[in-house]
Amino acid sequence: MTSPVGLHRVIEPAGVLPQAAFRLDNNAEIGTDEVRIAIERLNLDAASFRQLATKHANDGEAVRAEVLEIIRTRGKMQNPVTGSGGMLIGTVEEVGPQSKLGLAVGDRVSTLVSLTLTPLVIEDELASWDGRSEQVPADGYAILFGRSIAARLPADLPTELSLAVMDVCGAPALTRRIVSGYADPTVCVIGAAGKSGSLALAGARVAGAGRLIGVVPNADDAAALDDAGLADAVAIADARDPVALSTAVLKAGGPADVTVVCVDVPGCEGGAILSTGDGGAIIFFSMATSFSAAALGAEGLAADVTMLIGNGYAPGHADAALELLRDNAGVRRLFDARIAAERKMET
Amino acid sequence: MTSPVGLHRVIEPAGVLPQAAFRLDNNAEIGTDEVRIAIERLNLDAASFRQLATKHANDGEAVRAEVLEIIRTRGKMQNPVTGSGGMLIGTVEEVGPQSKLGLAVGDRVSTLVSLTLTPLVIEDELASWDGRSEQVPADGYAILFGRSIAARLPADLPTELSLAVMDVCGAPALTRRIVSGYADPTVCVIGAAGKSGSLALAGARVAGAGRLIGVVPNADDAAALDDAGLADAVAIADARDPVALSTAVLKAGGPADVTVVCVDVPGCEGGAILSTGDGGAIIFFSMATSFSAAALGAEGLAADVTMLIGNGYAPGHADAALELLRDNAGVRRLFDARIAAERKMET
Repeated sequence: MTSPVGLHRVIEPAGVLPQAAFRLDNNAEIGTDEVRIAIERLNLDAASFRQLATKHANDGEAVRAEVLEIIRTRGKMQNPVTGSGGMLIGTVEEVGPQSKLGLAVGDRVSTLVSLTLTPLVIEDELASWDGRSEQVPADGYAILFGRSIAARLPADLPTELSLAVMDVCGAPALTRRIVSGYADPTVCVIGAAGKSGSLALAGARVAGAGRLIGVVPNADDAAALDDAGLADAVAIADARDPVALSTAVLKAGGPADVTVVCVDVPGCEGGAILSTGDGGAIIFFSMATSFSAAALGAEGLAADVTMLIGNGYAPGHADAALELLRDNAGVRRLFDARIAAERKMET
Repeated sequence: MTSPVGLHRVIEPAGVLPQAAFRLDNNAEIGTDEVRIAIERLNLDAASFRQLATKHANDGEAVRAEVLEIIRTRGKMQNPVTGSGGMLIGTVEEVGPQSKLGLAVGDRVSTLVSLTLTPLVIEDELASWDGRSEQVPADGYAILFGRSIAARLPADLPTELSLAVMDVCGAPALTRRIVSGYADPTVCVIGAAGKSGSLALAGARVAGAGRLIGVVPNADDAAALDDAGLADAVAIADARDPVALSTAVLKAGGPADVTVVCVDVPGCEGGAILSTGDGGAIIFFSMATSFSAAALGAEGLAADVTMLIGNGYAPGHADAALELLRDNAGVRRLFDARIAAERKMET
């Protein structure tokens, strides 16, 4: 009997979760609820690749050798210094009869769980990789557990675009769930011109939002969001300034019943709390969120708000987010612009 | 027109919330929604008092002089090094006609918002304080804003017990709200023999929990919780060990529909997630909770759970928690034992 979270694949230390394990069992034979994927490409986590490149002074051969050594030793790709992994793209090779992931042999998929908990074997010595990019062409296989996340890459969208959508697909999923619990609510998205923010706006609309307020940090983002047509009102404010932010939201039709924080800068908790009305909810999707700042901030302001930690997973979240992108030309434009900007930054 | 969160009392820097201000206006004249309290005692935050005592090598006179100087300069008691304040006990002196705090002149109250945002004036030079304890007898007054929190100290309970209950009264309030959204749910409280934990159990029962599981770290706490009779099942487990914790919760009748985390140690996120079933909710009340560990943990485990940041405030939370204590002899016994143990540690 296999464990849905992969406990049976943990070799050492015993009794920990796969992510915390030093070494995983990467045997190719799958359990009845597991899935094996033939790898096409690993995407190393940016922090992990940077650490390796710096350590080896950009010597691609040395970086390649260390990545191979890590995977050989640990049975998974987890940088021992940064602790981070990445994700992978591949094709489904075998599906256990009791797998609930909804995958079929031949599906081209992206894993949405971290490489740090994914049993992995490399079979080509990464010969097609020069060790100079996070994108690692690779031959080999990976194992998904009973409870895991992999999404089919749609044929009608560029792979890079699909991956960008999947990266943030938890945001619209949770936003929809919370918004649908209110009648005709006012929804405020902070960081509304970004990837998670634009999808959150589109998701809130589908879930029945009455009024959508998009907050952005500057005039450029405001113009882009206006052009996308996703919000009923666009406000410019520094999300770290509680008074400025809440004043801007009030002027735009707030306070909000549901506030969604999608900006990855610290210090946005107070402003989000002040922008949300009594009985409202705040969803924090930013990894820069401080648990204690949110908890103590709400108490200090005597704010009767429900505060949620943005869970990156919900059933069907990837397909639903891709659907939002297809249905909203405005979301698509914002994503295309972000991807183009990121590509430009890399060169 | 006064601001319900006290913006009109901020002198410098302009445009920040009272907690972030260097200096507040502590004028005795109240706005139409404000309340003035005649102070009986300040309770300095433990970290703040420790810093002051260490800095002045336990010279009580010097500590007293610095506290007076801080309050004189800032118009509030906020330790410039630790950033922390404390709370106060006093008697309501004047209530603005538009105050919504539900207080009447003569009420003996405790403030449940921090001294770091409370306008304050000391009028007796703290003459009755020797500077050697966090408990500071004081004459003077404090101002509460339109949106603030103060709770009447009940005449039928010792002040120390009431304060201990009020300190954690947000936990049972939010637990009740979330539990009542499920039909006949299984509720698991981690750290169930503690103050917030025992009140969470009692609150969950009132809100219609079907089965109550209390998790504690050792046999002593298990015996105390058994004796209190608050849980249907008591389990012993290390909350930082995800596999051990979730196994113990399963054996005790889990997974839980609602999991409440009340232990103030880091690393409990994974275990709480694994102990909670699909569609369930987790409420984190521990200030040691890591936002990113919770968010990434749920995603890594493909866990369809709603995760909440424990908000210390909800309307009526203090009175409701005191009511739970009065109605549950078991809760009372656990509180009395904790208070006795803390007193013993201090001597």
